[in-house]
Amino acid sequence: MKPTKSPQLDTLQFIPNLSIDVVILGFEDNKLKVLLLRIGSKWLLPGGYIGCKEGIDDAATRILEARTGLVDPHLQFLSVFGSADRRFGEDWELLRRNIGISLKNENWIKDRFITLAYYSLIQIDEAKPHLSTIDDAYGWFDVDTLPELWMDHKEIVLTARERLKQDMRLTHITYNLLPDTFTMPELHQLHETILQETLDRSRFQKKMLSSGIFERLPELAKDRPGRNPYQYRVKKQD
Amino acid sequence: MKPTKSPQLDTLQFIPNLSIDVVILGFEDNKLKVLLLRIGSKWLLPGGYIGCKEGIDDAATRILEARTGLVDPHLQFLSVFGSADRRFGEDWELLRRNIGISLKNENWIKDRFITLAYYSLIQIDEAKPHLSTIDDAYGWFDVDTLPELWMDHKEIVLTARERLKQDMRLTHITYNLLPDTFTMPELHQLHETILQETLDRSRFQKKMLSSGIFERLPELAKDRPGRNPYQYRVKKQD
Repeated sequence: MKPTKSPQLDTLQFIPNLSIDVVILGFEDNKLKVLLLRIGSKWLLPGGYIGCKEGIDDAATRILEARTGLVDPHLQFLSVFGSADRRFGEDWELLRRNIGISLKNENWIKDRFITLAYYSLIQIDEAKPHLSTIDDAYGWFDVDTLPELWMDHKEIVLTARERLKQDMRLTHITYNLLPDTFTMPELHQLHETILQETLDRSRFQKKMLSSGIFERLPELAKDRPGRNPYQYRVKKQD
Repeated sequence: MKPTKSPQLDTLQFIPNLSIDVVILGFEDNKLKVLLLRIGSKWLLPGGYIGCKEGIDDAATRILEARTGLVDPHLQFLSVFGSADRRFGEDWELLRRNIGISLKNENWIKDRFITLAYYSLIQIDEAKPHLSTIDDAYGWFDVDTLPELWMDHKEIVLTARERLKQDMRLTHITYNLLPDTFTMPELHQLHETILQETLDRSRFQKKMLSSGIFERLPELAKDRPGRNPYQYRVKKQD
């Protein structure tokens, strides 16, 4: 199935009552930021539907590419959101007016939807979103000061924000948010931002250096002076 | 929506292409065990469908009660399973023959299904499954030596097994598997079984006692002699 940029929606080829939404997170100016799209006056997560003959992970990858132009980024299932009253409601009218969506059966998209939320941790510098025709704008928003979002999309973003705390304890995936090489102060700031805690700088540095996760590069960081100008990167897994 | 024990399935009241399956885990004889149901010759997880006007968590609770008689146990979302070819296939014929299911549109249940998997950690002693009419038998199976299961149900069970390792590091939820009061050797055995690691007994005990999670009861364990006959329980959260 090829990504479609048309606002026409042939609902027969999609599974009803089930959608996918993707929380794309980056790290900039010591803040966690989420990529939001605007349709009309409302901000929302990039999302879409699952083809009848399409695996859910493939659908998430396709939707992410179609709505943002991001090809093959980190992508992982987050959780499901499916309260009984989860539907567009009046927002459906807004959506229809703004993008002139045409459907054989409008009830399809006005019906109740359960959504599979995914999340993707990327480097904002490397992401150059190319919007599909249905989106009016995009923006990176601080997850701690979000604008009004559609339906439960704010809850979905905050669930991803919480998940990062777990990920930081259990995996190395959160280091996707840093450039390939980084300094200790940058690593320290990422930890503080995700964990929403103040971490003693020298204890943190000792812990990181003894963790065996990182390796120091021979070159010093040119443009990032400080007490520890060394650059580090995550060691390749064997 | 009341639990139904009838094998008649009015598909109009359920969301198509989406099911719920529940991994019910207990701890017995130093093994993690999963509750499976048998229909005909095949074992499977208790599962069902989501009402069109029903929240997904409510559906999971209703299904668990209807299929096993368990009322209000621990229940938590695990993950989603939705590869493109996920369907009953020939097993549908087996299911139909054994339970005489009647459908206006057989394609509904033969179609591809995405499943929302939940898991529930309980005490086997306290669980007295009452089966619905569609099940022939139930049994508690060691998760490490499972019989042949329907579709991807084995993968779902093993995903829950892996999740417990995370849960043990991040939460207290795994202690649901123990009786309300337990000895240090029992706690030690639970940790070894879930983590699939050998843990030094005296270091483990020191770590547990200093964790602040447990409190010692004044009474000694009568029937569990050993070097540490004290009984413990998880401290109530303030």
